[in-house]
Amino acid sequence: MAVYTEVGFDEADRLLKSLGLGALTDLHGIRSGIENTNYYATTAQGQWVLTLFERLAREQLPYYLQLMQHLALRGIPVPAPQAGADGGLLHTLAGKPAAVVTRLPGSHRMAPGALHCEQVGSMLGRMHRASIGFEPDQPHLRGLAWWAETVPVVLPHVTPDEAELLRSELEFQQAVGGSAAGNALPRGPIHADLFRDNAMFDETAGEDRLCGFFDFYFAGTDALLFDVAVCLNDWCIDHASGRLVEDLAVPFLAAYQSTRLLTPGELRLLPALLRAAALRFWLSRLWDWYLPREAALLAPKDPAHFERVLRDRIDNPWHPPL
Amino acid sequence: MAVYTEVGFDEADRLLKSLGLGALTDLHGIRSGIENTNYYATTAQGQWVLTLFERLAREQLPYYLQLMQHLALRGIPVPAPQAGADGGLLHTLAGKPAAVVTRLPGSHRMAPGALHCEQVGSMLGRMHRASIGFEPDQPHLRGLAWWAETVPVVLPHVTPDEAELLRSELEFQQAVGGSAAGNALPRGPIHADLFRDNAMFDETAGEDRLCGFFDFYFAGTDALLFDVAVCLNDWCIDHASGRLVEDLAVPFLAAYQSTRLLTPGELRLLPALLRAAALRFWLSRLWDWYLPREAALLAPKDPAHFERVLRDRIDNPWHPPL
Repeated sequence: MAVYTEVGFDEADRLLKSLGLGALTDLHGIRSGIENTNYYATTAQGQWVLTLFERLAREQLPYYLQLMQHLALRGIPVPAPQAGADGGLLHTLAGKPAAVVTRLPGSHRMAPGALHCEQVGSMLGRMHRASIGFEPDQPHLRGLAWWAETVPVVLPHVTPDEAELLRSELEFQQAVGGSAAGNALPRGPIHADLFRDNAMFDETAGEDRLCGFFDFYFAGTDALLFDVAVCLNDWCIDHASGRLVEDLAVPFLAAYQSTRLLTPGELRLLPALLRAAALRFWLSRLWDWYLPREAALLAPKDPAHFERVLRDRIDNPWHPPL
Repeated sequence: MAVYTEVGFDEADRLLKSLGLGALTDLHGIRSGIENTNYYATTAQGQWVLTLFERLAREQLPYYLQLMQHLALRGIPVPAPQAGADGGLLHTLAGKPAAVVTRLPGSHRMAPGALHCEQVGSMLGRMHRASIGFEPDQPHLRGLAWWAETVPVVLPHVTPDEAELLRSELEFQQAVGGSAAGNALPRGPIHADLFRDNAMFDETAGEDRLCGFFDFYFAGTDALLFDVAVCLNDWCIDHASGRLVEDLAVPFLAAYQSTRLLTPGELRLLPALLRAAALRFWLSRLWDWYLPREAALLAPKDPAHFERVLRDRIDNPWHPPL
């Protein structure tokens, strides 16, 4: 990551003490993440992640932090933001907006099996249920409106084939979004970026166990089914071909439904949302690839993966055999 | 349980709605617990435990609920009390003080192995660390002062041998409690009743995994080592003889120390605290056995088990081979 703020031990210590978390005993930076600077911090009370927001607008931040707090208080294992004496979750460190959240144990599983997919499905369903009562509202900022804005920007950079696919898929998604069926999809706060590297697992007696979801900084109100589609497109596929693997996708979806039943309308629109979720990440990768921001990613990810995923979801619409 | 308050579906529904948890879809009573009436409640948002406090004084309750909230917000899986619009955690239902907390998944493991003991030890250490910053203070109401009060009350009911043991053990514990070493023990909010039936496990791929601790209604400020001793005396023993089983006790303690290191003073006083923890439950069981309260337990537990445990801890002081 090119954007990175150095945080002094003493100023981090002062922040943690002001939150009642005790004196800092260890602090080290995490060289990952695109939008934020992250540090692991240890005090006598536990382990924390200290996040400085480098790009997100300060007005957007309370929504994410309140959502995480809402979920943590409803028993969903997500990083819990630590409040100051006034109850506020957003702090200031090194002149930047900052948060201190609990550190989840565990590490990523980049080659998940059915057991991992099942656990992710079940917890995603629980999370969607638990988020129902969450009152703050902020749009999903990488949703349909952003796709419509972004397609024309990347068009000059892509091949005619790709341009044709982008245009036709955007048109298809706008039709879905404007349809009665699209509008009837249950909506709520979604994570919107629940890839394998935003979940933690640890091992108990040789078996991996999901410890929680994190990085809610793309969250916003949208169709719950979009989260399901993002997960299917990342957790339950063959990454070489981009194809869904039914031995992963079916356990994922069955486990999701064990905690939150999909409506008949959601089941019908799943193939369309799988396309939408592929389009969203193809677009953002095209953007990062052709229009690198100042001081952004040093190594943007290859957009071609999500082009393959999108073409496959169009050619092979998946109707789950449930 | 003889004390039991019937809660109507409609009044429970009103309470859950007022907490922003959605409409009640299912409610059923749990016929367990000594001091409280408990119901499982389901709404679209999730599953909850609704507790009516039958015996605890209303003034005591905020402490327990605030402690649970503090721990939940620091990532310890404990039932999280749900707040009303004013932030209050204590509500009223059927004319009784009441709380609504998240329901932990899982079930008890009454024949724990080393894997269970390890997980309990590790989470207990994490919980003790996370509780350091908790500011409300309430004494541990089943601590030394209560033992001193209760020994004379049960003495007339027990055999001369038992009376002698109660008197001499109380004297020993008063000496420990009044000693410099006793006063130097790290103190904080402890659970104080962390038996096997106050922890939940569920199964992932055939392996049990700790989902959390509950029932904090004996919690209070005392030596953290008391919690360790209560756990050792229940999780890590042969229940027929009452003896510690090193194959359970050593993994338990090593796991505890992986998250919170015991001080040299704590290690030295562990044999004394194992006796204290045995005395505390022997005393409460003697009380329940010989002085049954009106409408209390229908079937009080046999006090003889903890008499055996106490005699064993005196005869075989355990110095962990760490």
